[in-house]
Order: sequence, then structure tokens, then C-alpha cells
Amino acid sequence: MTSHPGRPSTKEGVVDLNADVGESFGRWRLGDDDALLPHLTSANVACGFHAGDPLTLRRTCELAVSLGVAIGAQVGYRDLAGFGRRYVDVPAAELEAEVLYQLGALDGIARAAGGRVAYVKPHGALYHAVSRDPEQADAVVGAVRAYGGLPVLGLAGSSFLAAAADAGLEVVGEGFADRAYLPDGGLVPRSAPGAVLTDPAAAAAQAVVLARSGEVRSLCVHGDSPGAPALAAAVRAALGEAGIAVGSFG
Amino acid sequence: MTSHPGRPSTKEGVVDLNADVGESFGRWRLGDDDALLPHLTSANVACGFHAGDPLTLRRTCELAVSLGVAIGAQVGYRDLAGFGRRYVDVPAAELEAEVLYQLGALDGIARAAGGRVAYVKPHGALYHAVSRDPEQADAVVGAVRAYGGLPVLGLAGSSFLAAAADAGLEVVGEGFADRAYLPDGGLVPRSAPGAVLTDPAAAAAQAVVLARSGEVRSLCVHGDSPGAPALAAAVRAALGEAGIAVGSFG
Amino acid sequence: MTSHPGRPSTKEGVVDLNADVGESFGRWRLGDDDALLPHLTSANVACGFHAGDPLTLRRTCELAVSLGVAIGAQVGYRDLAGFGRRYVDVPAAELEAEVLYQLGALDGIARAAGGRVAYVKPHGALYHAVSRDPEQADAVVGAVRAYGGLPVLGLAGSSFLAAAADAGLEVVGEGFADRAYLPDGGLVPRSAPGAVLTDPAAAAAQAVVLARSGEVRSLCVHGDSPGAPALAAAVRAALGEAGIAVGSFG
Amino acid sequence: MTSHPGRPSTKEGVVDLNADVGESFGRWRLGDDDALLPHLTSANVACGFHAGDPLTLRRTCELAVSLGVAIGAQVGYRDLAGFGRRYVDVPAAELEAEVLYQLGALDGIARAAGGRVAYVKPHGALYHAVSRDPEQADAVVGAVRAYGGLPVLGLAGSSFLAAAADAGLEVVGEGFADRAYLPDGGLVPRSAPGAVLTDPAAAAAQAVVLARSGEVRSLCVHGDSPGAPALAAAVRAALGEAGIAVGSFG
Repeated sequence: MTSHPGRPSTKEGVVDLNADVGESFGRWRLGDDDALLPHLTSANVACGFHAGDPLTLRRTCELAVSLGVAIGAQVGYRDLAGFGRRYVDVPAAELEAEVLYQLGALDGIARAAGGRVAYVKPHGALYHAVSRDPEQADAVVGAVRAYGGLPVLGLAGSSFLAAAADAGLEVVGEGFADRAYLPDGGLVPRSAPGAVLTDPAAAAAQAVVLARSGEVRSLCVHGDSPGAPALAAAVRAALGEAGIAVGSFG
Repeated sequence: MTSHPGRPSTKEGVVDLNADVGESFGRWRLGDDDALLPHLTSANVACGFHAGDPLTLRRTCELAVSLGVAIGAQVGYRDLAGFGRRYVDVPAAELEAEVLYQLGALDGIARAAGGRVAYVKPHGALYHAVSRDPEQADAVVGAVRAYGGLPVLGLAGSSFLAAAADAGLEVVGEGFADRAYLPDGGLVPRSAPGAVLTDPAAAAAQAVVLARSGEVRSLCVHGDSPGAPALAAAVRAALGEAGIAVGSFG
Repeated sequence: MTSHPGRPSTKEGVVDLNADVGESFGRWRLGDDDALLPHLTSANVACGFHAGDPLTLRRTCELAVSLGVAIGAQVGYRDLAGFGRRYVDVPAAELEAEVLYQLGALDGIARAAGGRVAYVKPHGALYHAVSRDPEQADAVVGAVRAYGGLPVLGLAGSSFLAAAADAGLEVVGEGFADRAYLPDGGLVPRSAPGAVLTDPAAAAAQAVVLARSGEVRSLCVHGDSPGAPALAAAVRAALGEAGIAVGSFG
Repeated sequence: MTSHPGRPSTKEGVVDLNADVGESFGRWRLGDDDALLPHLTSANVACGFHAGDPLTLRRTCELAVSLGVAIGAQVGYRDLAGFGRRYVDVPAAELEAEVLYQLGALDGIARAAGGRVAYVKPHGALYHAVSRDPEQADAVVGAVRAYGGLPVLGLAGSSFLAAAADAGLEVVGEGFADRAYLPDGGLVPRSAPGAVLTDPAAAAAQAVVLARSGEVRSLCVHGDSPGAPALAAAVRAALGEAGIAVGSFG
């Protein structure tokens, strides 16, 4: 990966650790946020369109604030049935308004909890779409700018981050501690064997390599597997042992 | 009606004129907001739970800002199928979070449009529930306070406004220009003949009486009938002819 | 409890065993249907309004058919966020159409799986509402009749079953193996300590007492707790040891 | 267009006339079904996923039955906010179950009204997707077959109809009375000027040409514009004057 405005290098060995939280919905629980959040420096909190009921968001924001973890808006498609993993061909003006709506909703809840939304990270199919579909990328960027211009967290080196940087937004590139990479820097597709690293030691080792590479400012671990808290703890411990400081990018 | 902290008297003959707007949803249009908004001083904008898609909210807020009309959050139950007119027995903590979510969502959109949410008005079945169910009233009040304490618009003389005032919120009591009243001050039920005044002249006359009574600081006209813009225009003209200034309470 | 047309006595010591299944929704899993279903004789399958996405319903129906378990339509309010546990004041004509819609939807899926919907059981807040609100009871009964007149499963001795019987429907009264009863035959409220029996042995003992009482034709066990399959197995084993045949009422 | 198994020729000059109905949702009205239905021979009734609440569906089916108009299931994506016009990348097994669910739901309502669902027509973005995405086409075909094998109504000459015919389903190709065609037989895109024919005389003339061509067994008119009933009446009158019998294909 070559350098471009959208992908600043890691600051002095400080790396962020993010994961998705707040993804329960009503009676349905997902992830063990209470156990996972203490290991994170940035919490991608769902915003209600693909996951996350308002009370869950409120409790999650309160916990994040009490732990000093930065709150990010995990914005996604209006798709509860598909958990935001179904690509939806939303016209740009509608998508921009939908992202803006989600941002404001979560920020209201975060502020009531004594915090505020500190960054934005697209979720699921939208995460992938913004690196492929310039219209949807521009819609997300437009919503973030309309909301005052928060930092954007996304795939390191992606066209989405380049577009966000071009629009004047701070961008934070992330790598995946627990996803296997291909030699060209792409991710092994989820459908392939070994795509997800479930061994905490393997994820921790990969996290150290990614952090040292200088290519990423944040490391993502998946939050919705039963072993997520243990894996996040292992990643954080390994970074500490490697002398890499862990802290929010905010 | 006797005086209490929750129902300040009208300021020097200035009365507010409010109506529901922003109630379209996707393909479905409702109301003629473009024609109605210029006659209002306060616009109760739907927040997406019972009506109002994000793009509609954005356009409505932009129009309100351009016209200098105050934006209020028309919060309601999560009930698109029933347009918020079905009472829902939502537990208090969930309702408080749901109202907070709606408030933040609309405020984010309003701020992106150069304005901001200036007050809160419960909608439909929630409007009635908060005057009957103290737990739901407290939930709405709690959400408004958690959001920083906006004025609350509701039925003049209602226990909801009393509860809001007790909690330190500014309250604004409203009367209905186009609903028939009973001798005891209650509204003629919608199911009864003559419950809704569709004649602009009759509504305008009632508006003047209500404004002069000093019992209400705001007058509500219904926004979702075809004749709404003409009726609002007639009300506003009659108030002017009667020497009653019309202006937002904010 | 005195006898009435809505509560026929148990047939010759044969009792039905029912539980809620098919309550997952998209990414969110709830209950261990694969482990629970083999112990049941009747499966109350969610219908998509308060729980249950179509693919979950299809797989659940296929499993029920393969095991010879009767399929019931677990109809409820349109309330994903509240899991159908929020009472909703739906006008009768709308509720009747909503129940009819759910019935047809599940029956289509059941028939594609080689089975069919054999009975109807209201869920959550609707279960309680139909014993309290004659209009909502009539709406559910009206929907079942409009669909051809399936048996209705509900609280033994309830006014809902009486109304259904009066309308010519077959009714099946149920008792709860794992809920504590009050001396007057009512259920200990969920909020009280000891309301839910989590000990399989205690539930099994209560099941035998209920089955022998002749007051119920079906026994309900809750499906959404981690221990549900073990509890259902204990109930079924105890009934067998007590010489009580277990079988669907259909 | 050359002949293939998916596009049988018109039977003896009899042509069907179809339009979308039942697309209101709760408080939001769309189309004038009461005025439009008498002119149709086939009514594509929405199924609740992208439009159509259950009570609307019931009333629409009752009206269709009373008029002798055939009822078709207008199946679509789960997308109320986008009216089913947003393409959604639903995995095939989920889409098949979702279509099956919609089919059963509408059929239950139709049967309660004394009729039954007589055919299936995909709506909006799904209509276009099934002619482009073989997986989604197979999912729809699979659902129809799982439901017993109803006729499928779609774009004359499309790969979707070919796939349905290959699977043993009866297929009915349609043309659009009120959409402008390109020289190659494709439709002028909606965004282009003149894409939609709003002049009843022009649509009527085009309808006669299409019916005489033998390429279509059904003619579609759009149901959601204010002039829809008048346009449908003009089409029907022109067909009569041209000696072309109008009747359902069922």
C-alpha cells in the first residue's frame, strides 16, 4: 500500500482497538458488551437501523462513557432482517439523510450519557459498498460533513477513506486482528476455511504485526462471537508486551 | 381551568400557531407541507417512528429554517402501521430511550439544515397517554430533560404539562382551532359528528376566542387534511384582524 | 374452575406438550429449537410480527414435520422491538386482518414443508389481552374462523377460550409446567420471586399434577431459556413414568 | 422477440389487463383502488413487505372477488421505506422464504374473502432483479413451486419467464400500455422525458398495438397515478373497439 492523504501513518506507536457493540435488539441479545468493552479504546455502537434498540444504545453509551471508551456511530442500511449485511441500492439523497438520522440519534443518546459520538464507521454491506460505489461513499461522507465533520473509520487504503479525506474529513484506516489476509492485502472471504481467526494467540500475533506495519491506526476485533472478550484481551495484552501503546485516535 | 406552574398565561397577546408536518413516508405522501408551512410559526416534525422518513424530515427542516418557522420534535410510538395512533404499553425505560433517540435524530437533521429542535410535542396515542399514564409522562419528561431540557408543547391544563413543569421544563399549553370543544373544556370525540371543524371561518373564529381566553399559548391546526393550508391561512388572517400577534413561543 | 363449553376435559389421560419455537430473527438467535422440538407434541411457531423471520419459520416447520410435531401459529402484535410483550391497542378490524395475515403466512410455509398449521395460540401481550379485552378476543376468534376454524390454544378457563367455544371453535386449555401458581389458580406474576420454575424436577412434578387434574389438555413449557430442552425432557419423562400418555390434541 | 417456452402466444385475441393495487399502508393512501379495479381483469395485490397493510389487503381482495377480478400476489423486497424499489441483495434461501411467506399471507386473506391467489408478479426492484440475477429468479421460482405452482406474470421475453417456464410454471408475458418503448423492445428509462404515457388516448393506442402483436398475454397499466382509473378505462374501451376480448389469463 502506498501513502495517500486518506491514510496517515500511526502516531508514534499508538494504536486504537475497536469492535462492534450495542447490537442487541429488544429480546434478542448479541455479544457480551459488558465483558468486551473494557478491552476496547473505541466502541462502534449500532444506531438502530440494522441493530440496536434505543435502550441498548443508551446502556452501551453509558458503559462506554464510564470506561472512557470512545463512542463511534456504526451506521448501516435500514435492514433489521438482514443485520445490515444485505446490500441495498438506496438513492444517494435518501442514504445521506438516513446516515444523518442515525448519527443524530446516537449522538443524542451519547450526550445524554455524558459523552458524544466521536467518529463514524459504516457497518456490514455498507462498509463494503462505500469502497465500491462512489455514490454511496459520497452519501456517507456528505452526511458526516453535514453533521459537522467527524473522523471516519474504515478499511485502510480504501477508496472510501480517500474520498473522505478529499472532502476534508479525518480518516482512520483499520486492519483486522482476527481476519486472515491474502498476500495482496485483501481479506480471505468469509466463506473460505480459516477466514476468521478464532485463536486468541493467532489474532494477537497478527495484531502486533499490523500495528508495527504503520499501515493502520486502528485494529478491529469482531464483537459478536462468544470468544470476543477473551480475544480482545489477548490482543491488548500482546500489544502491551510488544511495547505498542493502545489508545483512542480521537 | 385554574392557574398552575405548568400553564403560564399568554404573553401580551402573542399566540403561536402549530401543525404536524413531515409525515410522509417513502412513496406515501401526506399533507401539503409546502403550502402549509408558510402559515405556521411552529412545525411539529415527525421523527421516523410513526411517520417521516429521513429525507422527508431533512427537506421539511430545510423549508422550516428558510421560512423562520420553529422546529418541534413530534415524538411518537414505534408504530408505522398505526401512524402512532395505537396506544402501546412500552416500559418506561424503553420509552424514555425511544423518545431520546427520536429527539436526537431530528435534531441532527435540523442542525444540518441550519436550525435546531426548539421544542417537543408527543403525537397521537402518546399525546393522550401522557395525560393519563404518569409513567409514560415521566418517561417523555425524562427524555426531554436528558436531552437538555427543551420546552414541551401539550394539551393546556393537562397533567402531562403539570408533570413537565414540576420537572423544571418550560411548558406551552395548546388549544385546537379546528376541533369542537365540550362545555367542560374537553374535546368532542373524533367519532362524534361535528368533532372536526372543516370550515375555515368556524376554525378561525374559534382560534380568536381561544387566543383571547389567555388559556393557551399555542393554537393547533391539523395538517393532514386537504384543506389544511387554507384553514391555517384563515386562522392566521383572523388573528391578525383581531389584533392578536402571531409568533413562535421559543 | 367450573366446567364450561370452552374447556373440555382431558381425553383419557392424554396430554399435549407445547412450547414456543421459531423465535429467532435474522442474525439474532433465540432458543435451541433443534434440542427442544423432539420433546414436544405441539410447536407454537412465531409468525413474523413479533418474532421469526421467514427462513427461520421454514426451517422450524420442516423440523416439526420431520418429527411429527403439530405446528401452531403463534400470532402476536406487530412489535419486533418489544417481542410482542407490549400491549398494543389495535382496532379490532385491523387486528383481525393482522392475525389472518400471520396465519396464512405460516400456513403457506408449513404446507411447503409438507405440514400445515393445526392450531392457533396468541403470544405475549396478546395472550393476556384476549382474556381481558372482548374486542381483541373477538378479533382473534374472527380471524381464526375466517381462516376455516382451527382449534385455539389458550389459558384454561379463560374468557378467551369461552368466547372461542361460543363461536364454534375447538378450544384447548393449557397449564404451565414451569410457572408457579397462586392458590386461586392464577399465575404468580413474573416480577415476583419464584414465579418461574427453573428446576426440571419441580416443573416435572407440577406437570404431572396439572395433567392429572383434568383441567388442562396441554402443558406449556417456556422455550427461550437455555435450560428449556432439559426441562421439557424432564416433564415428558415424568409424564411417562406417571402413566400419562403424551400426544398432540389435533 | 423470438418464441420460447416461457412466452406462449396470446389465446385467440384475449388479453388480460393488470395493475398494482392494495398499496396503501396504514394512514397512507395510494391509488384509487375502488375506481381502478372495475376496469381490470387481474389485480396485483401488494403483500405487506414493501406496501399493503393487512386490512387494506383484505378489503382489496374482497373488492376483487366481488368484481370477479383475478388476484395476484405482488411480492417484493422487505422495504417499506423504499416501496420495494431499492434492490436488496437478499441471499437466495432467505428470499425464497420471504416470497413464500408473502404468498401464503395474501392467499390466506384472499381465501377468507372467497377467492384465492391466482398468480404471482414480482414488484419494483425485484421485478427487474429477476431478469438480471439468476439466483434471485430461482428463489422466486422456487417459492412459487413450493407453494404449488401458480402462473407467473412478468416481462414478456425476459429470462425470468424463461426460467419459470423451464421449472414447469405457466408464464404470462406482459407489456406496458403506459410506458414508452425503445426500438429494441426495451423500455425508455423512467428518468427520460416521455417515459411514461399519461395521455389515455396514447396509452390506449399502444395497448391495441401490443395486444395485436401477439407478444403479450397481459397489459399492465400503472395504478398509483391520479389518472390511473381513467387511463385503464380508455385502454379497456379501445381494446373493445378493436375487437380484442379482455379477460383474465387464469
